[in-house]
Amino acid sequence: MPEFLKLTAPDEALKRFMSHLPAAQPRRETLPVLEAAGRVLASDVYALEALPSFRRSTVDGFAVQASSTFGASDSLPIYMNVVGESQMGAEPNFKVGKGQAAVIHTGGMLPEGANAVVMMEYTQEARAGEVEVQRAVSVGENVIEPGEDVKPGELLLEAGKELSPAVVGGLMSQGIAEVEVVKPPRIGILSSGDEVVDPLQVPLPGQVRDVNSYSLSALVQRFGGEPVRFGISSDREEDMRARARSAMDACDALVITAGSSASVRDLTARILAEMGEPGVLVHGIRIRPGKPTILAVCDGKPAIGLPGNPVSALVVGSLFIKPMIYHLTGRKTTVPVAYLQARLSTNTPSQAGKEEWFPVSLRQDERGWIAEPIFYKSNLIFALAKADGLIRVPLDANGLEAGQVVEVYFL
Amino acid sequence: MPEFLKLTAPDEALKRFMSHLPAAQPRRETLPVLEAAGRVLASDVYALEALPSFRRSTVDGFAVQASSTFGASDSLPIYMNVVGESQMGAEPNFKVGKGQAAVIHTGGMLPEGANAVVMMEYTQEARAGEVEVQRAVSVGENVIEPGEDVKPGELLLEAGKELSPAVVGGLMSQGIAEVEVVKPPRIGILSSGDEVVDPLQVPLPGQVRDVNSYSLSALVQRFGGEPVRFGISSDREEDMRARARSAMDACDALVITAGSSASVRDLTARILAEMGEPGVLVHGIRIRPGKPTILAVCDGKPAIGLPGNPVSALVVGSLFIKPMIYHLTGRKTTVPVAYLQARLSTNTPSQAGKEEWFPVSLRQDERGWIAEPIFYKSNLIFALAKADGLIRVPLDANGLEAGQVVEVYFL
Repeated sequence: MPEFLKLTAPDEALKRFMSHLPAAQPRRETLPVLEAAGRVLASDVYALEALPSFRRSTVDGFAVQASSTFGASDSLPIYMNVVGESQMGAEPNFKVGKGQAAVIHTGGMLPEGANAVVMMEYTQEARAGEVEVQRAVSVGENVIEPGEDVKPGELLLEAGKELSPAVVGGLMSQGIAEVEVVKPPRIGILSSGDEVVDPLQVPLPGQVRDVNSYSLSALVQRFGGEPVRFGISSDREEDMRARARSAMDACDALVITAGSSASVRDLTARILAEMGEPGVLVHGIRIRPGKPTILAVCDGKPAIGLPGNPVSALVVGSLFIKPMIYHLTGRKTTVPVAYLQARLSTNTPSQAGKEEWFPVSLRQDERGWIAEPIFYKSNLIFALAKADGLIRVPLDANGLEAGQVVEVYFL
Repeated sequence: MPEFLKLTAPDEALKRFMSHLPAAQPRRETLPVLEAAGRVLASDVYALEALPSFRRSTVDGFAVQASSTFGASDSLPIYMNVVGESQMGAEPNFKVGKGQAAVIHTGGMLPEGANAVVMMEYTQEARAGEVEVQRAVSVGENVIEPGEDVKPGELLLEAGKELSPAVVGGLMSQGIAEVEVVKPPRIGILSSGDEVVDPLQVPLPGQVRDVNSYSLSALVQRFGGEPVRFGISSDREEDMRARARSAMDACDALVITAGSSASVRDLTARILAEMGEPGVLVHGIRIRPGKPTILAVCDGKPAIGLPGNPVSALVVGSLFIKPMIYHLTGRKTTVPVAYLQARLSTNTPSQAGKEEWFPVSLRQDERGWIAEPIFYKSNLIFALAKADGLIRVPLDANGLEAGQVVEVYFL
């Protein structure tokens, strides 16, 4: 059996992983709305008040009784007495009766008696205190009724919704100054490898700095999690088991990056398998970079084992860490991933049966965006740090051709 | 002349606005790398050290002198003495001579004397202490040389680059723990309108809560600016002028939302025109919502006058506030905007000659994403708060048809 058939396809891997996660039970906290921007609502929000709270005009013009305008036209205008002006921000202290009109501005409050507004464009000044109305209006025309947008008690926003700028505005429109949001789930991050040292240390010959703890922490932050670093484990099984155990106990999820040595490649899987039921769900994915990825759920908590190579860890990590954090924060739907369409600058070979991801740099010509693949030898982090985005070559493609339109994803 | 010809097309408006902005002179601060994630580099970063710092293997296998493998094949393998194993994280304390081999792991350091690695797959255990090599390798094969990825002194990252997770990793790989980043530019935000009251106040009849100060603050935060709110101005010219002046003096840019009354619609333009050279550049844009937008540059500082309607302010605001903040933070290139392709659920009429933006909700079927336009009467903030994204109907289109593929943008 060819090796890639023993591996799980990326879509199937994600589905299996997500389907084993128990319903999210996020922790909550109450924050001022603006501080909570970008966070996720922990509970449904119901309307406290009607919106609008009074009968408003949606145009500039004249507030009238609709019946007074019956039959009005360009050639047969109707003349009305102007009895006042509805001042912005104030309740008019006069009434509009039959045959009467009042000046009104967009957003202004209709005076008592008025039930429609004639747009400025269909009126003309007549004698002082009089206006010529050239078009008939029906009851409610150019008017928005109290509660027409929002009724008190109505469900406004569901738990799981992100506090976008529009949601922030929506909450303020109801006078809601504080809101219950989801606390960022704690994601334990553990690096491993006998060759890996703290990045502030000067590596000796044979040693490399720990990149993954930091790049994955930034990734976790970006997706709304709180990264908690548990240092660097040696390749000794007892060491890694002890650190993985304490990370898992203290956090809502665990991300381990393995040492790059082949001898320790299965260590993570062995440790995760013992850590709780059902244990390892996926071990090996038809993806490049990132083949040796492990997905597990241990007694209700998700765990991801990533390859130690910094590029692999980040590329494949983002594919699985993002939906994991979104689940833990109780986001209702899997938010679709936005991308940019661009033309490929050059032929990009790939192996059928594996989904491949390439870093690209972007440039623009008169026809649009061009994606230039960055080919690299050693999966060095700077291949990714210098890139503008990533392109995906689907599982079944034998590479992509120059000029082909590709989707560029942003990390 | 039809009215829309007096208005500026959105692209042209943005171009004119950006071309009048002086080169950015962002303030700087030094932060720990992880705290700076998502911020923008204030200065170029040069390599301190070579990467890798030693000669590494890129595969699991046997480190050899390439010349020893000359002529090796499946049918005529060469037998070599195994003289040791390169331990991960340590400098091998032995040499590899002619006809000798050493066990090595991915990322391991080559012993002195070795200049290539034979992949594990092309070897076979022979007698104890011996390995059968079935393929010849050339000098440097499966090896990465010191400095091959990064040379000391090399330009690694340019000022203006965002600290993405990969950039965070890249900096740590060089042992760079702190980094000089751009301080968020201060964006003054001023609401206006006689009818507008503080959102924590209970509005009287005719009054509405200030939504824009908060939704625009969230927008400014999202794009990397620091919002500074300057309260709510009345529609009196002196009041607005004084507040606009002090906001502009204290900040790097100004965003004003106008009251919705027609009588005050030109007030903002008048005030911005007097505030410094060249003053108002664009007054009125061929866009819906957002037609009455004003773009100005006053003595080197940008100012945007937005319509008071919360949806208009947010939709059109995001089109101009984002590039303005990106410019002020010194981002090198206009980062392209990502989107999602979806099929339109229903015919969406629009007026040719105006770029129109509609909020949509998204759902999925077996063929992909479907965008369902949310039609609304009063530009209520909840039309946008409940939406998943926005679709754009281009300037020259007479609406869009059901089934047509559209680009969905996320606010």
